[in-house]
Amino acid sequence: LPTFTPETRQALETLKEAPPVPGVLDVIRHRWSPRAYSDREVSSADLKKLFEAARWAASSNNEQPWRFLLGRRGDETYAKILNALAEFNQVWAKTAPVLALSVARKAFVSNGRANRFHLHDTGAATANLFLEAFALGLRSHAMGGFDPEKARASLAIPQEYEIGAVMAIGYLGDPNTLPDQLRQREESPRERKPLEEIVFSSWETPAQL
Amino acid sequence: LPTFTPETRQALETLKEAPPVPGVLDVIRHRWSPRAYSDREVSSADLKKLFEAARWAASSNNEQPWRFLLGRRGDETYAKILNALAEFNQVWAKTAPVLALSVARKAFVSNGRANRFHLHDTGAATANLFLEAFALGLRSHAMGGFDPEKARASLAIPQEYEIGAVMAIGYLGDPNTLPDQLRQREESPRERKPLEEIVFSSWETPAQL
Repeated sequence: LPTFTPETRQALETLKEAPPVPGVLDVIRHRWSPRAYSDREVSSADLKKLFEAARWAASSNNEQPWRFLLGRRGDETYAKILNALAEFNQVWAKTAPVLALSVARKAFVSNGRANRFHLHDTGAATANLFLEAFALGLRSHAMGGFDPEKARASLAIPQEYEIGAVMAIGYLGDPNTLPDQLRQREESPRERKPLEEIVFSSWETPAQL
Repeated sequence: LPTFTPETRQALETLKEAPPVPGVLDVIRHRWSPRAYSDREVSSADLKKLFEAARWAASSNNEQPWRFLLGRRGDETYAKILNALAEFNQVWAKTAPVLALSVARKAFVSNGRANRFHLHDTGAATANLFLEAFALGLRSHAMGGFDPEKARASLAIPQEYEIGAVMAIGYLGDPNTLPDQLRQREESPRERKPLEEIVFSSWETPAQL
């Protein structure tokens, strides 16, 4: 395997780019979700920018249902989040210096009615966070593979909140540190459905774009 | 009321900017959700970029649960989406040249198991779309105020999909065309909870950032 150098790193980042469509933001086209993180710590100033980006997302009725539990390597919250992860995620996520968990308030504060957009809007805030992270040179990876009730119990999250996603945040590390199967995924191009399969003029009829 | 000129438009856009935090992406800080849209049509080339941006969002297991129904003024899909909106949204949304509806596949295609991130990930794709729209000079506004079952019926959306959000897309229009109460909201600064209320080191203890 090639040594991880600035050159092989650049080759990996290039491999992960979405095919160019002129006018699409680079930060959207180039963002991906690595599994190998370096030892480098994330500064508080940069973490603040990530959540600042999340904060300005749109939400139904401006409810801002999102909350984030932030763990940094060595603290209790980090250990609890890591501990709730499925083993196949622990293997790699433990290399990230930051682990965070999103949760979403289920009901509107103003009237107590169910907010059916609580996870939708939390996903939007998380997308903002990820794009901001990428812009700062950070990398991030969200996971659904964890035990939400274990996280709820160990982190004392009230029932009024739905458990969202765990996210690993840090700087890109050496893919060679990953187990074989994960290394192969790390070094494979990103894939998405073609537009024809996701944008319709009427149900399952591709929109003319 | 002042006439809508390039100058008053710029003053409005400036009023809507989030307070600067150096390093936070302008597109995140400046994006907002207008209710007044101009007559100007949106090109197919630009619409394609919006959905291209949505397409590259992250999703649980790379499921990409998002689908979009795209309506353009004058077509049936537009009329059906508009018709499903609550009256308080119809009032202004009818000025937008594009109305789209997001829906989210409830189960993973591979194994039929429930995907609890279906709306979360659709929200993430929508956030990408909105940032891309803003970068192109377009504006957008998502709405939860509509009858999802009416939309499902008129647009023939299968039960396998959860109804997401309606989004208005177009170019910024004159706030003076809005009813008084909406005009006031159009001309008010955006507000968000402070970071201390959304980022915790342990539950409801603000993280030190």
